[in-house]
Amino acid sequence: MTTRRDFVKLAGVSALASIPLLQTQVAAKPFANVKRSFNIGIAGYTFLAYNNNIDKIIEVMNAIEVKNISLKNFQLPYESNKQQTDEVIGKFKAAGIVVYGLGVIYLKTEKEVDNAFSYAQLAGVKIIIAAPAYGVLSYVEKKAKEYNIKVAIHNHGPEDKLFPDIDKIFEKIQAMDPRMGICLDIGHSFRCGNDPAAMLLKYKDRIFDMHIKDVDSPVEKGNTVINGHGKMNFISFIKALDESGYSGTCSLEYEQKGDPGLGLAESVGHFRGMLTCAS
Amino acid sequence: MTTRRDFVKLAGVSALASIPLLQTQVAAKPFANVKRSFNIGIAGYTFLAYNNNIDKIIEVMNAIEVKNISLKNFQLPYESNKQQTDEVIGKFKAAGIVVYGLGVIYLKTEKEVDNAFSYAQLAGVKIIIAAPAYGVLSYVEKKAKEYNIKVAIHNHGPEDKLFPDIDKIFEKIQAMDPRMGICLDIGHSFRCGNDPAAMLLKYKDRIFDMHIKDVDSPVEKGNTVINGHGKMNFISFIKALDESGYSGTCSLEYEQKGDPGLGLAESVGHFRGMLTCAS
Repeated sequence: MTTRRDFVKLAGVSALASIPLLQTQVAAKPFANVKRSFNIGIAGYTFLAYNNNIDKIIEVMNAIEVKNISLKNFQLPYESNKQQTDEVIGKFKAAGIVVYGLGVIYLKTEKEVDNAFSYAQLAGVKIIIAAPAYGVLSYVEKKAKEYNIKVAIHNHGPEDKLFPDIDKIFEKIQAMDPRMGICLDIGHSFRCGNDPAAMLLKYKDRIFDMHIKDVDSPVEKGNTVINGHGKMNFISFIKALDESGYSGTCSLEYEQKGDPGLGLAESVGHFRGMLTCAS
Repeated sequence: MTTRRDFVKLAGVSALASIPLLQTQVAAKPFANVKRSFNIGIAGYTFLAYNNNIDKIIEVMNAIEVKNISLKNFQLPYESNKQQTDEVIGKFKAAGIVVYGLGVIYLKTEKEVDNAFSYAQLAGVKIIIAAPAYGVLSYVEKKAKEYNIKVAIHNHGPEDKLFPDIDKIFEKIQAMDPRMGICLDIGHSFRCGNDPAAMLLKYKDRIFDMHIKDVDSPVEKGNTVINGHGKMNFISFIKALDESGYSGTCSLEYEQKGDPGLGLAESVGHFRGMLTCAS
């Protein structure tokens, strides 16, 4: 990991211009060796345009060397039987990719909650990313304990009447079982006019998953863009990530029409570049 | 541009965890507004797998919003007439992309030098990236003055008997016309065991173009990899870029078999991410 000491050392670089060249270089450690407590992943919604083409998803993830994914139902349908589930999860596993979660899953009825937990159990994941109605929250909590599966409730921005940002999620779950938590979507938080870095630090103990993206303007009508093309302050966010001790997955989510490959790849590169030097 | 003051401000972020959340955020400026003296571009060799498919190249460059390219001869053949040249250059121009240079062009005979300069004049570029034999260097200089076109001689790594790194280029051109200069390929410099940041600062006055890439090991057999996946110290390199006042193009070059799109996009994102915070 690049340290502040490296920055201090850089101050001396200009002196090299007038003295004989050093014949050795200070090699940076590759990103794979950057010691951090969290993983980099992809939120399955990113691959909407690939529908259920798992091979294509794996091809892209292998090219950019990302090894964690949460799946949406168009990749693993809710009604999948054991054989169908094993086939999808197995394809990722054979490619060295971990399916760590499922979602976002909308939960309005107890029946939908029942289905979601059996679906997650069949897939062998330890976390559901969810958008539950207030009325089923207690039932979701009951099932989370019964299955020992964590629930990360997702904030969906100013238009979302239930959970626009994660303060509302925390308000609803703070007295519940510790398996009830938050998936912080930094783009939607930003569109609420909040600072995702501050939100992360305030609610860090209950944040189990994250959706990482950039947004072109911190307003309701802001659009998701490639990381670095928008106005997200990734320097302060990554500083907060490191301070928080977050140990879940930072799943990049790129929400554009058409093939997401290039935009996702640039976003992943940008995030890794920032991680290398923003701490 | 992110300043050191931003880093200092970050030291206070942790305090936010225990006080009410700020309801506004410090928005980062998008990369397009980062004030730097150089452009980001692509070295045409990157698109080898697309052969002469200019539309495909433009599609990728537009997706990642890179607006400068140097072309290889498989994109603009040496023997192109005016109409053919105008068609290729015009396609890029219509897409808002500037063809700023041509190369790498190998120059062994005076005839090849003549051809290269008329080719560059027809394309309307102001720079040729070249790999000349020692024997034609004086003739190249003569033509550079005659056409008022700059020549950036490219270092090709330890295997290159003529110009393994840019110290040899400088030795040969230092007494020549100031239009004779260097294209610093930081990957090949790194494979020579040198520090590209130091090379840049030492020879900055004669560096007209750059090829930016990462390499997995600072040895002759080192392989080009996606930026951030290798051992290039981009923090010190970008610090040197800023110190040097370099005002040419930083052209990313991604040299892998198969479709370069994803690797190039990740490399561009990584470079932009580093530029945002490494100064």
